[in-house]
Amino acid sequence: MTLNVALFGAGRIGKVHAASIKSDPRAQLVAVTDVMEQAAAELASEHGIAVRSADEILNDRSIDVILIASSTNTHADLIERGIAAGKAVFCEKPIDLDLERARKVVASVSAAGKPVMMGFNRRFDPNFSTLKAAYDAGDIGKGELLAVTSYDPAPPPVGYIKVSGGLFRDMMIHDFDICCWLFGMPETLSATGSCLVDPAIGEAGDIDTAVVVLTYADGRIATIRNSRRAVYGYDQRLELLGADGLLSVENQLETTVRKATTSGVTSAKPQLFFLERYMRAYEIEWGAFLDALIADAPMPATVQDGVNALALAEAANISLREGRPVTITAELTGVAK
Amino acid sequence: MTLNVALFGAGRIGKVHAASIKSDPRAQLVAVTDVMEQAAAELASEHGIAVRSADEILNDRSIDVILIASSTNTHADLIERGIAAGKAVFCEKPIDLDLERARKVVASVSAAGKPVMMGFNRRFDPNFSTLKAAYDAGDIGKGELLAVTSYDPAPPPVGYIKVSGGLFRDMMIHDFDICCWLFGMPETLSATGSCLVDPAIGEAGDIDTAVVVLTYADGRIATIRNSRRAVYGYDQRLELLGADGLLSVENQLETTVRKATTSGVTSAKPQLFFLERYMRAYEIEWGAFLDALIADAPMPATVQDGVNALALAEAANISLREGRPVTITAELTGVAK
Amino acid sequence: MTLNVALFGAGRIGKVHAASIKSDPRAQLVAVTDVMEQAAAELASEHGIAVRSADEILNDRSIDVILIASSTNTHADLIERGIAAGKAVFCEKPIDLDLERARKVVASVSAAGKPVMMGFNRRFDPNFSTLKAAYDAGDIGKGELLAVTSYDPAPPPVGYIKVSGGLFRDMMIHDFDICCWLFGMPETLSATGSCLVDPAIGEAGDIDTAVVVLTYADGRIATIRNSRRAVYGYDQRLELLGADGLLSVENQLETTVRKATTSGVTSAKPQLFFLERYMRAYEIEWGAFLDALIADAPMPATVQDGVNALALAEAANISLREGRPVTITAELTGVAK
Amino acid sequence: MTLNVALFGAGRIGKVHAASIKSDPRAQLVAVTDVMEQAAAELASEHGIAVRSADEILNDRSIDVILIASSTNTHADLIERGIAAGKAVFCEKPIDLDLERARKVVASVSAAGKPVMMGFNRRFDPNFSTLKAAYDAGDIGKGELLAVTSYDPAPPPVGYIKVSGGLFRDMMIHDFDICCWLFGMPETLSATGSCLVDPAIGEAGDIDTAVVVLTYADGRIATIRNSRRAVYGYDQRLELLGADGLLSVENQLETTVRKATTSGVTSAKPQLFFLERYMRAYEIEWGAFLDALIADAPMPATVQDGVNALALAEAANISLREGRPVTITAELTGVAK
Repeated sequence: MTLNVALFGAGRIGKVHAASIKSDPRAQLVAVTDVMEQAAAELASEHGIAVRSADEILNDRSIDVILIASSTNTHADLIERGIAAGKAVFCEKPIDLDLERARKVVASVSAAGKPVMMGFNRRFDPNFSTLKAAYDAGDIGKGELLAVTSYDPAPPPVGYIKVSGGLFRDMMIHDFDICCWLFGMPETLSATGSCLVDPAIGEAGDIDTAVVVLTYADGRIATIRNSRRAVYGYDQRLELLGADGLLSVENQLETTVRKATTSGVTSAKPQLFFLERYMRAYEIEWGAFLDALIADAPMPATVQDGVNALALAEAANISLREGRPVTITAELTGVAK
Repeated sequence: MTLNVALFGAGRIGKVHAASIKSDPRAQLVAVTDVMEQAAAELASEHGIAVRSADEILNDRSIDVILIASSTNTHADLIERGIAAGKAVFCEKPIDLDLERARKVVASVSAAGKPVMMGFNRRFDPNFSTLKAAYDAGDIGKGELLAVTSYDPAPPPVGYIKVSGGLFRDMMIHDFDICCWLFGMPETLSATGSCLVDPAIGEAGDIDTAVVVLTYADGRIATIRNSRRAVYGYDQRLELLGADGLLSVENQLETTVRKATTSGVTSAKPQLFFLERYMRAYEIEWGAFLDALIADAPMPATVQDGVNALALAEAANISLREGRPVTITAELTGVAK
Repeated sequence: MTLNVALFGAGRIGKVHAASIKSDPRAQLVAVTDVMEQAAAELASEHGIAVRSADEILNDRSIDVILIASSTNTHADLIERGIAAGKAVFCEKPIDLDLERARKVVASVSAAGKPVMMGFNRRFDPNFSTLKAAYDAGDIGKGELLAVTSYDPAPPPVGYIKVSGGLFRDMMIHDFDICCWLFGMPETLSATGSCLVDPAIGEAGDIDTAVVVLTYADGRIATIRNSRRAVYGYDQRLELLGADGLLSVENQLETTVRKATTSGVTSAKPQLFFLERYMRAYEIEWGAFLDALIADAPMPATVQDGVNALALAEAANISLREGRPVTITAELTGVAK
Repeated sequence: MTLNVALFGAGRIGKVHAASIKSDPRAQLVAVTDVMEQAAAELASEHGIAVRSADEILNDRSIDVILIASSTNTHADLIERGIAAGKAVFCEKPIDLDLERARKVVASVSAAGKPVMMGFNRRFDPNFSTLKAAYDAGDIGKGELLAVTSYDPAPPPVGYIKVSGGLFRDMMIHDFDICCWLFGMPETLSATGSCLVDPAIGEAGDIDTAVVVLTYADGRIATIRNSRRAVYGYDQRLELLGADGLLSVENQLETTVRKATTSGVTSAKPQLFFLERYMRAYEIEWGAFLDALIADAPMPATVQDGVNALALAEAANISLREGRPVTITAELTGVAK
């Protein structure tokens, strides 16, 4: 049996997912929809599939899965409509920019009992997942200090910044998820941030440089550093100190070529951006979703995970605004810790 | 216009090429043939194409390109039959184990005037091609010392060794080609070799460990080191000393994870074998062939290149047998230097 | 002219300084004093010098320089007595555990007009000073995010912890100084800390794991991570993101040997502790002090620098205790910013 | 008891040894002699010792050890005069440029029964000795392929080249010794060489770029690559493939600073030359000599080792001149293998 998949959204990330679907024979892409008709038509043509309306897709009982890669403001509704139509759902992060709305989606999903996965791609990066496997296997003993470094190569257009929900919900949300994935939910969060890269980002009410510190009930501490600009490429590193050692993920470089001259020894830059850096992660992520649908594997990233990351982003905004640590409560995440 | 491609050989390397063909929309795989009917059927099924006989393929005027990934002893004949049938040909190395036969293929190709490319995949590895581009750009000035390290993770079965043509023609041929690609044809060659990995390889009349030194008319020197066994993975490195610096290609590691413990700092192993290490190279190689067919780019690896590498392998066998340096003559390569 | 130097303190760090003095012919060690008579006698014997009392040293007009490497509680008095006796003073950090006392020393030094240097050895480590030189030269443009990682290989005895002044004044003070050296005095400081390594440290009222975030008036942010235990060795790293790139200092490893096996590729551990890691720094530091005395170079680490680092430690203790960011005021540092 | 040492030769390498002597309290430098009176006087003044004539030193029964760091043509005579005078001898390599003369020294030393050590400093470099210890401990199983890379940063003056004995006896002799130290005496040697760096070196009858291949009776193979010029610094690497893995020594870099910019990630260069790279090795070497004199440790580098390396240099000259592999016979080394 091959699962039939319909894709919502034919933009950059939609194309990535369309390619990933082709890499696993257990599912096939059969339809695409997008409000941008040209984008939908092009993607449909490339993959030899049909452009259909959202309603047609949701009403088509032969479609088993919808993959939501449309704009953020459509995610919550589409998840709910998808599960109501009896479909399994894969949705790009975030659920919604509004935390309360996201918590409602968790309730809807819980009530419907249909499988829904959030696209936290970094969990599936072979580097990060190898680190987690080594940590879970006890290679470095009990975790103590976690540090996530995540710098984009260049800031997005200010037009994007304005609708992004801000650095914490748009960019650092990935890093919040990584911290939750490795360390669980923190007890407190302290955020600091600045506008150092582009004054226009500050004028739009956002920051482009930020540091967040998370503390955990048992004394563990995590730090996240974000910048919208690292001119040398997409900087995606992580390190985790434990009682018995240190695990780290270094950047993937464009090549392994080195050049030694009178100026020193020069290596290649980190791979430029997420399409290069996480190409494999998107494929593995899709396979993990299919494993959950078909092989009864646990869902590797749930809507509750989506709410948790969003709750930390919300707390970061409060902390930044009020200049104080924020306690992470059940009210924020919608679940008792 | 999309070029129609037929694949000869549905084994391991045939499957790699079938996947590469899918990565470039300028050509499509339309047929496969293999003496192993089961293998052909499986590959055909996976790609939704037809199994056909070699004759049918060669007689089908709608087929533009044949890709030869069948066993070595079929290469020379299939190249000649392919060009006689008016087709462009992509052929896995080597042309033939017999140097004289290979030289005849060069003559046939030259007479037919059809485009034929040899599959020297390493030329298309982004690491090696970036090194060559930097060298050609003069980044390290005039080249002086070239060193190629090429170790397989584990020896092949002795059954394979017996039909392989021996280490120089089967394994080091890639490294000979890399030397020719970077430094051109050498003036002399000295080979030494041993059987250290598996006595059965020695009993089969072959070696599993070898060092070859090439000297060039202008004083440059190249060394190649081969072993059939590096237990830590597929070791594929190169370094080139020039008047103004050193360029090197390091191994690609399985992940970028590091673990620091009381035992030291441990990184991942090199990617296991050629399918992992050169996956991208096979795709780029295929695109470069299509560039030559469609966009009038120069053929990036010719049958003469195939003869040159084979001539060096022949010289290495003589040098090893007779314990002396061998001069590389026009008689060996079939062309005046 | 050779400067005559007397050493106060014949313990571990006193021995390091005695060795450094020998490395520069512009000064010679002529006397040592220590309340531990045996230690003083041994050091004196090794260096062929006299054991003398503190009073004798201070009253001896032929002694030009006193080097204070005795216990912390003697530093402030000895600095003041030394300058009152007309001597140049080199003093190990900190000036005093009490910030007010330290500020008085600054006033005394200012009034006396004698040269006094604080031993912030890391400023003289060739790695850190090369990074600073590159930063000052504009290699990465304006600084944005600074991150200091500083882990000891193993915690000191709890007996030491109890008299140490606590992690912030004993251990992180070096990192505070590095931040001041690179970024100047911050505007706010937020500290968090835990006892994860040894419960006895917590029982002694101290922490062994800490993260501090510093913010600067112009939006720059610095983070410091400390742990009393990194089982793989003394972890001393720094990275600095700027508008045009990233500068980092990696650990110095015990050797450059690598071993590749089926388990991966293993490198050596970082050098074990500060005597190994900063051996060169101590020598260079001493030479820089002599440069200031003899060659009119600026004093590279002043008592005000000592007060500044101590003020940040004080702020960190307040922040940790009260769970809030602390603003760094002129009251803390004794000088208008 | 402290051994009294007299130094023959106050040049660059003599100064290095004088400093090393100070690092170990078991011996003290008491006298120096040099035909360059000014150099001897300066070194004597710096170390507070006497300048004496060679005869005075040899006749002074209070002198236990002579350290020969004078010009190569004096080595053989001084060794013989030293042991005849009943002294222990440490001698810089080589024994003599003439192999026969060197073999006679071995006979003299053997007859006298006095301890004589040759200064093959690389054996004592912590990187190389750690590699050897790991190899001897069986970490990579049986050795198969050894590769030594040894490039000087810049060629010496041609005036030096002319009296040096040529690249094989002056420069590669260190690498021959490393091969003997790790693999023992080879069965055959093949040399190739060119003049690529400086035509004046060729006019002086020497080469500046060379590759030598050594084969061993049991099938092991070693390669040595030398160049008189690596513009990026002193390149001193080694790698050893064994049945169970690979051991390598990488270069020591000037600092651990990295800079990531739009141009890539740049690390420091290798330490410039042997004084920087092997500073520690010289100290350890001296301590090992004292261990042999005082603590009955085996002599770690003997005059026979000196003859062995010289015999390989002689064989390399023959191989280069005659363009053929040379068998290493007992006639060359003076001992049955």
